[in-house]
Amino acid sequence: MNKEEIIQKLFNGEMKLYQIDKFTKDATEALEIRREFIAQKTNTDLSYIGSYNIDMNTAMKKNIENPIGTVQIPLGVIGPLKINGESCTKEYYVPLATSEGALLASINRGASTITASGGCNARVISDKMTRAPVIKVENSVEAIKVKTWFEDNFSKIKEVAESTTSHGKLIKIDPILIVGAYVYPRFVYSTGDSMGMNMVTIATDKVLKLLSEETNAKHIALSGNACVDKKPSHMNLIEGRGKTVVADILIPEEIVEKKLKTTAESIVEVNIAKNLLGSAVSGTMAFNAQYANMVAAIFLATGQDLAHVVEGSLGITHAENRNGDLYFSVNMPDLPLATVGGGTRLETANEGLKILGLNGSGSVRDFAEVVVSTVMAGELSLIGALAAGHLARAHEQLGR
Amino acid sequence: MNKEEIIQKLFNGEMKLYQIDKFTKDATEALEIRREFIAQKTNTDLSYIGSYNIDMNTAMKKNIENPIGTVQIPLGVIGPLKINGESCTKEYYVPLATSEGALLASINRGASTITASGGCNARVISDKMTRAPVIKVENSVEAIKVKTWFEDNFSKIKEVAESTTSHGKLIKIDPILIVGAYVYPRFVYSTGDSMGMNMVTIATDKVLKLLSEETNAKHIALSGNACVDKKPSHMNLIEGRGKTVVADILIPEEIVEKKLKTTAESIVEVNIAKNLLGSAVSGTMAFNAQYANMVAAIFLATGQDLAHVVEGSLGITHAENRNGDLYFSVNMPDLPLATVGGGTRLETANEGLKILGLNGSGSVRDFAEVVVSTVMAGELSLIGALAAGHLARAHEQLGR
Amino acid sequence: MNKEEIIQKLFNGEMKLYQIDKFTKDATEALEIRREFIAQKTNTDLSYIGSYNIDMNTAMKKNIENPIGTVQIPLGVIGPLKINGESCTKEYYVPLATSEGALLASINRGASTITASGGCNARVISDKMTRAPVIKVENSVEAIKVKTWFEDNFSKIKEVAESTTSHGKLIKIDPILIVGAYVYPRFVYSTGDSMGMNMVTIATDKVLKLLSEETNAKHIALSGNACVDKKPSHMNLIEGRGKTVVADILIPEEIVEKKLKTTAESIVEVNIAKNLLGSAVSGTMAFNAQYANMVAAIFLATGQDLAHVVEGSLGITHAENRNGDLYFSVNMPDLPLATVGGGTRLETANEGLKILGLNGSGSVRDFAEVVVSTVMAGELSLIGALAAGHLARAHEQLGR
Amino acid sequence: MNKEEIIQKLFNGEMKLYQIDKFTKDATEALEIRREFIAQKTNTDLSYIGSYNIDMNTAMKKNIENPIGTVQIPLGVIGPLKINGESCTKEYYVPLATSEGALLASINRGASTITASGGCNARVISDKMTRAPVIKVENSVEAIKVKTWFEDNFSKIKEVAESTTSHGKLIKIDPILIVGAYVYPRFVYSTGDSMGMNMVTIATDKVLKLLSEETNAKHIALSGNACVDKKPSHMNLIEGRGKTVVADILIPEEIVEKKLKTTAESIVEVNIAKNLLGSAVSGTMAFNAQYANMVAAIFLATGQDLAHVVEGSLGITHAENRNGDLYFSVNMPDLPLATVGGGTRLETANEGLKILGLNGSGSVRDFAEVVVSTVMAGELSLIGALAAGHLARAHEQLGR
Repeated sequence: MNKEEIIQKLFNGEMKLYQIDKFTKDATEALEIRREFIAQKTNTDLSYIGSYNIDMNTAMKKNIENPIGTVQIPLGVIGPLKINGESCTKEYYVPLATSEGALLASINRGASTITASGGCNARVISDKMTRAPVIKVENSVEAIKVKTWFEDNFSKIKEVAESTTSHGKLIKIDPILIVGAYVYPRFVYSTGDSMGMNMVTIATDKVLKLLSEETNAKHIALSGNACVDKKPSHMNLIEGRGKTVVADILIPEEIVEKKLKTTAESIVEVNIAKNLLGSAVSGTMAFNAQYANMVAAIFLATGQDLAHVVEGSLGITHAENRNGDLYFSVNMPDLPLATVGGGTRLETANEGLKILGLNGSGSVRDFAEVVVSTVMAGELSLIGALAAGHLARAHEQLGR
Repeated sequence: MNKEEIIQKLFNGEMKLYQIDKFTKDATEALEIRREFIAQKTNTDLSYIGSYNIDMNTAMKKNIENPIGTVQIPLGVIGPLKINGESCTKEYYVPLATSEGALLASINRGASTITASGGCNARVISDKMTRAPVIKVENSVEAIKVKTWFEDNFSKIKEVAESTTSHGKLIKIDPILIVGAYVYPRFVYSTGDSMGMNMVTIATDKVLKLLSEETNAKHIALSGNACVDKKPSHMNLIEGRGKTVVADILIPEEIVEKKLKTTAESIVEVNIAKNLLGSAVSGTMAFNAQYANMVAAIFLATGQDLAHVVEGSLGITHAENRNGDLYFSVNMPDLPLATVGGGTRLETANEGLKILGLNGSGSVRDFAEVVVSTVMAGELSLIGALAAGHLARAHEQLGR
Repeated sequence: MNKEEIIQKLFNGEMKLYQIDKFTKDATEALEIRREFIAQKTNTDLSYIGSYNIDMNTAMKKNIENPIGTVQIPLGVIGPLKINGESCTKEYYVPLATSEGALLASINRGASTITASGGCNARVISDKMTRAPVIKVENSVEAIKVKTWFEDNFSKIKEVAESTTSHGKLIKIDPILIVGAYVYPRFVYSTGDSMGMNMVTIATDKVLKLLSEETNAKHIALSGNACVDKKPSHMNLIEGRGKTVVADILIPEEIVEKKLKTTAESIVEVNIAKNLLGSAVSGTMAFNAQYANMVAAIFLATGQDLAHVVEGSLGITHAENRNGDLYFSVNMPDLPLATVGGGTRLETANEGLKILGLNGSGSVRDFAEVVVSTVMAGELSLIGALAAGHLARAHEQLGR
Repeated sequence: MNKEEIIQKLFNGEMKLYQIDKFTKDATEALEIRREFIAQKTNTDLSYIGSYNIDMNTAMKKNIENPIGTVQIPLGVIGPLKINGESCTKEYYVPLATSEGALLASINRGASTITASGGCNARVISDKMTRAPVIKVENSVEAIKVKTWFEDNFSKIKEVAESTTSHGKLIKIDPILIVGAYVYPRFVYSTGDSMGMNMVTIATDKVLKLLSEETNAKHIALSGNACVDKKPSHMNLIEGRGKTVVADILIPEEIVEKKLKTTAESIVEVNIAKNLLGSAVSGTMAFNAQYANMVAAIFLATGQDLAHVVEGSLGITHAENRNGDLYFSVNMPDLPLATVGGGTRLETANEGLKILGLNGSGSVRDFAEVVVSTVMAGELSLIGALAAGHLARAHEQLGR
């Protein structure tokens, strides 16, 4: 079948979008035909979307279905950002992609403040990935027995789970929650440098097969929402998910004044009034100003799963006036990250990781330190700007 | 100064990244030098990042600072997705960008189910953008007076706010919350087809100037976190922010079986066990399976602010077994959207909007209906797959 | 039938506990027989429970079923507590009932601190009682029509609602939330000096009859949990329920030192570390130390509904170091209260209200100011004690 | 000094309320003088408050300061309530104190339904009491070291903590959360039959002394609000506090119809629309109808700490239609309870526990099963009444 015939069949509904590949010599040809159909069907010029140079043949196997091209998002860098991490002290240039004007300028100002102060501390406190299926039995008495089954058979369960993966390790199954006749065991794994969701899904599924062989428990869903994936949750804030990271710094009084044009006292007041009281009064789960902005920009630049911005947006910003110097901290309890797998293999994202020197295995803890430090840079800059009353004026000048 | 000299100055710290533009003939040249410096500094080949074709000269004025190129993310389409909206019934092909394999295939299956059932209902219930500064006075008695000032002077305040914008309208200031001597008035605006955050920031700032002229209240921060921007909040769930949209559908029993390989009864049980009880038991603010995945993909494809995925991830999925037929609904109370401004002007994103026929003015309500319907497609497909026990097997087959 | 015969029938299951009254000359005789049966059945001496002097005949009509006597709880007083309220400045002795040793001593210390500082400000910001039924229609499109019906027919609805009550006034129906085909309209009333739950239940039920006459909406439940009654909720924190009250004070440095043995600086640090950050980090809806203790004690002493302690426990404590003086505030957005009706008519509770001079009509706003000020006294004292490191030692000395 | 002289000094401010005892032959005389002063000062007849018969001399040492008498609250019983507990199956008459008319009648109806169905299952899943201080160090790097100190020295810490108590056992210190330079270690103890708050406070204080000897960490407050005591929290819902208990039952179709005048299908719909969706849509932490009512009534009748009603109000009600039969469950993750200590020694409360046969040591787990089963009785009855549309009519008939 030639291109025109395929497009004709798409138009009259005899072929579905995902069936094109069966009739073309390769996936790239299918992509081109699909885009042409959409262009004709919607009467649109799709030449920018069609002008990509990443390897879509591979992407179609791992990253997307029904492709017609790529989106391009502007990518910039901020830095140098000096980080005193667990393994080393280093200055980074951080790649960030966004369409929100003024964001990189603001983050860069924060980075400059941090670097001028000798760098910020950054540490990974814990590192895990989770999956919590939901299982059903007859009643609460049976549900407690299932809970006990998980507790009593941990070493066998661990063996079964780990048989499915070379990198994943089952650390614990905790908590195991019960509602009515439903049981929610939360499987907690370490997953190395990959984000790990697929790994833990497959491993947990294998355990559920064991459960169904050994008990009469019924598996309702492989995810019972106590994982908690891509939703804001107190479970993850309390138990941690992905990387739990912290960063803090003591900024000398003169640097606060020179770089941020304000004082520690003013920043402390803004932080209490806005990030603590303002969040509390409005039932906000995140006690910060804008983690989501920095997380989205660095995720986009490095091939992370963008739906995880939801989890990465959570955390608490704290500030103290220490005799005129500013103590400033951010904590991020729920930050899923990868330096291998998923979107990190896409060419531009991989270059983004390479700018940091953190692509591939053995890099993810350092990468977590970069993310939390970049978040601090943006947070510090915005709180500083609010303290200095600059925000609206900045927007006016940018004419936006 | 020539390129080599600039790069040398960047290397030895005599020049900052954002200062390059002063010494080049245009912003594009500065971009090239900046990328070359980063490439040399980090010893990285940045040729994919450098191979863009969108207009970075304009992007540098509106969307980014310190650019070195673009990231490319695979873009595909799903459809046709039939929507019975407020203004018309129409079939859409929806552009979605992601690096998460299997996502578009899954959404497409949901879209196919919806379309085969005659389309889903989709409606915008409310449409607003908010900004809530934090103001300080002497004590609670004075705080109550400030609250009264806002209530008593609404028409004057409205006039002042609207003097800064041609599209924005101040609808109300509500609620006005008090903690100690702090006051948090939540300004609620309509903002037309733009997302509106900058518009409402500028308008609210002007009102704060009036406040400081007429009272002795002190403006602490232009955003006091009761807005609530880019953070998950009960304020927005209860009061709404951005577009508050709903979609629902009644899917005949035979289509549930044919397309989703399961039953209404099973889907209802999964929805209760996972999305309702599982979310409740783990303190999750979102009672759904994966809104964030669809929201991130369509936001990326259409130039929305990706940090708003946090807000867009919230909402409740509900399912009912109506005599074997499946009633299925999603609600999204907090969905900021734009069809003009911000990232929507970037060439690939703009083509994404054009695929929908929804770029530019007068389109944003229809666009909201497309987003909520696409979210329903993905949600329906995933819940269906969990009900059918297919999830882990799908991942295994994809070899991921 | 005589007493022995009745008890015999109770023993052999031929009579139920609530049927005794049919065979006795009055309710009091039934009460005595019921207690004697329980004493025999459980082989217990119930002489303390039987030694009451309140009027149980009336109580049985309004306050309880199946009574066997009363519980007695120790009642004390704290004071004088000086309050600068909306209508007057006054010193109160506040009745408090509890079995928790050290509580009144602690609250009294706080009251003494407040009074020595010239009294605290206390104000009622809003006053309302709510009921939110849940209604069902066919789908979301119909649900929006129901929402519109409530908005379009407000004056008729108001007339119908108010026809059922002499004191209640329907202020608004807002918000009206939609999930799937369900609609949750939140009816907001003013209810004078009674707590008002029964009043608003009856009034709202009448409106639902009108709704069912004029539309095909189906009434699922008279309370759909968006009220929100006796459960902790962000709805009530944002929208208010019962009395929304605030209190604050500026305590001179020397009084902080003399009365609380600590400094403003220490109290501010404890408040931030515990009430703000500690609550945030553990997903706590209440940003305070112990409102529940004071609320429970004053509710018990004055005949309030003790299940409302749940709502009364919510609120935010804030502290500032103002040049060595301590600014301290409490806010309570969700405080249901009554000075007439319910348990306030019971003799000991009524005496409790009389100690305050606040029994009967026209008293409830002043009573709200007393409650919030008493809460402040306890909160201030505990935070002060923690700041001074005294808590555990106090418990050790009491030998508990 | 005689009575008149003391009262005179109280009037003119030369004596404080708590100083009376120094000048009287015993505490009871002081109580009488104190009441007389309040009666004169507020011009009130306090004869009901003064007519008590419990032993106030002992109460003044353990339960209250500044007493003037007691409050009396009507006490009734419901039952028989059949419970299939862990240790035995038994029928109970449950003492409940309240001033809310119709409550006991409603709970009794639920109990009758449960008993007619053969009783409900009730189980204690976990049993613990917690205390979480807040500690401060220099920065996040030091904070992680403190976390490690707790983890590395657990056996020594356990020994120190347990040296202060004969019944308490330190089970774990988990989680240990970090915000900025603050550390929140959550100490988890078992405490036998006492509620345990004082026990764990003293034990944890001793550990903090060890910490300050061995590190340079500074103890900010003995409670850092991650305990979480008397406040609604996701921490306690996820981790448990006090008793974590569940109850469930399968009620045959004919009993649902006969006793509750409705159907399983209707009850399931009310439960989903109200307790699940209604709670979700309004940001309610408790997914139930009215646990607080039953918890408050049984707490009052048995001498529990009434401020703990806040924690006891939390939990999820679930209902299923199993072929016409009704499966119904309640879970309560956060229920602090005691059968010894605190208010349980007060004479009327002690008689309340004796009615259950559950006063004193060795009783608290059975008592927890009674509480959760009583909560189920009330919850079932109210949901049933709503399903049958009876609520408002019941209130009208009671003329309230």
